[in-house]
Amino acid sequence: MKILLIGAGGTLGTSVHSTLAGRGHDVLTVGRSGGDLRHDFTDPAQITELYERAGRVDAVVSAAGDVPWKPITEMTAQDYLDAFRGKVLSQLELVRQGVGRIAERGSFTLITGVLAREPVPTGSAASMANGAVEAFVRAAAIEIAPQRVNAVSPTVFTESLDDYGAFFPGMEAVDLAKVARAFVRSVEGAQTGQVYVL
Amino acid sequence: MKILLIGAGGTLGTSVHSTLAGRGHDVLTVGRSGGDLRHDFTDPAQITELYERAGRVDAVVSAAGDVPWKPITEMTAQDYLDAFRGKVLSQLELVRQGVGRIAERGSFTLITGVLAREPVPTGSAASMANGAVEAFVRAAAIEIAPQRVNAVSPTVFTESLDDYGAFFPGMEAVDLAKVARAFVRSVEGAQTGQVYVL
Ligand SMILES: NC(=O)c1ccc[n+]([C@@H]2O[C@H](COP(=O)([O-])OP(=O)(O)OC[C@H]3O[C@@H](n4cnc5c(N)ncnc54)[C@H](OP(=O)(O)O)[C@@H]3O)[C@@H](O)[C@H]2O)c1
Ligand SMILES: NC(=O)c1ccc[n+]([C@@H]2O[C@H](COP(=O)([O-])OP(=O)(O)OC[C@H]3O[C@@H](n4cnc5c(N)ncnc54)[C@H](OP(=O)(O)O)[C@@H]3O)[C@@H](O)[C@H]2O)c1
Repeated sequence: MKILLIGAGGTLGTSVHSTLAGRGHDVLTVGRSGGDLRHDFTDPAQITELYERAGRVDAVVSAAGDVPWKPITEMTAQDYLDAFRGKVLSQLELVRQGVGRIAERGSFTLITGVLAREPVPTGSAASMANGAVEAFVRAAAIEIAPQRVNAVSPTVFTESLDDYGAFFPGMEAVDLAKVARAFVRSVEGAQTGQVYVL
Repeated sequence: MKILLIGAGGTLGTSVHSTLAGRGHDVLTVGRSGGDLRHDFTDPAQITELYERAGRVDAVVSAAGDVPWKPITEMTAQDYLDAFRGKVLSQLELVRQGVGRIAERGSFTLITGVLAREPVPTGSAASMANGAVEAFVRAAAIEIAPQRVNAVSPTVFTESLDDYGAFFPGMEAVDLAKVARAFVRSVEGAQTGQVYVL
């Protein structure tokens, strides 16, 4: 398959990239500062350009999405708007704009995370964003069939424990290899409207 | 208790208003076109004004929040932004701005809905918004204690079946009297971080 991978140069993206490429897929990489195509996917107009340049693809995979981390009392309305643009609207627009452009039986796989279910202090914007994307995935699935859409919702990556472990005391970590397999399951499988909880 | 009720003049708000008033609470009503205080709660600056005019309250209850309804292929990026401002940011800002202003053991009760879990066609923005608010409620609860925050997440109201029944074929409806009791449970009870599914 020809697969468009947003965030291919990141911690998650690198693992998803090598896993999908290792299974014989043709992966077109996207990032702001690196990749085959350079676009900021928080800007809906750049998603249009991205799809125009990418041509027909079979699957769209997102491994990107940033949100502010702060105590609620330090957040601003703009922080929540930034979280919405950074992780929600960006991924929704991949689907909304992609429906008319990707293969007839193509798929979308979005990234969320454990904070949708299990909150941690300073993570309210991340929780909000993940909850929004997971509910959207269930809703979009029933409208876009036979195209498909799923979310991968992992806990902290084992490989990210040095950076973020302090935020997740006592919570299980998950190896990137396992997270990458959930992306394979979404892309090559036949399910839709699923949130793969890892 | 002194309770600030946003959307008091609506279908849900009227029922919540009479139920809370009937239990002896002092309810301050808020709406754009009616109520004791007239403010548009999708504008963060008007929420600031609202809290300044309301003075100290014991509980903040939201029975308002609008989103666009359209097939995904007819949605625009602006529609999803409008949904975010209309039902998510509006309710998040009640909490964020309210934390420093309401009673030390005060509470927030927000409104979501069944579409967070069970989607219907044309409801992708509503699903997204409800999922965002429910995940936020879990996250905010662990930061704002001893203040509390819950969401009430009902299916279609029996009293709204004439208007919206066609969107929910075969789905159970819930009487407004039962929905109003969930608001009582949140306001007068001691739980936090809960999503009351009705
Ligand atoms: N790390 C964890 O433990 C963990 C656990 C659960 C979920 N997640 C989620 O997984 C996702 C990826 O996390 P990560 O740790 O792999 O992040 P990361 O290492 O920072 O990688 C993010 C990648 O996305 C690209 N990117 C960021 N913003 C972009 C934009 N606006 N447009 C296009 N590309 C963009 C970045 O490249 P450029 O800077 O060049 O654009 C980078 O390659 C995030 O949504 C995160 O919340 C992470
Ligand atoms: N109806 C159902 O079956 C159902 C089921 C589950 C969940 N819900 C949810 O319950 C909530 C209320 O639904 P409803 O059917 O009761 O709606 P409704 O009858 O339209 O009432 C909404 C009320 O909120 C006020 N309002 C709307 N936007 C506002 C704003 N920006 N600022 C301040 N006040 C505002 C309106 O008054 P003004 O126009 O004067 O501002 C009105 O009094 C919605 O979020 C809905 O999604 C409804």
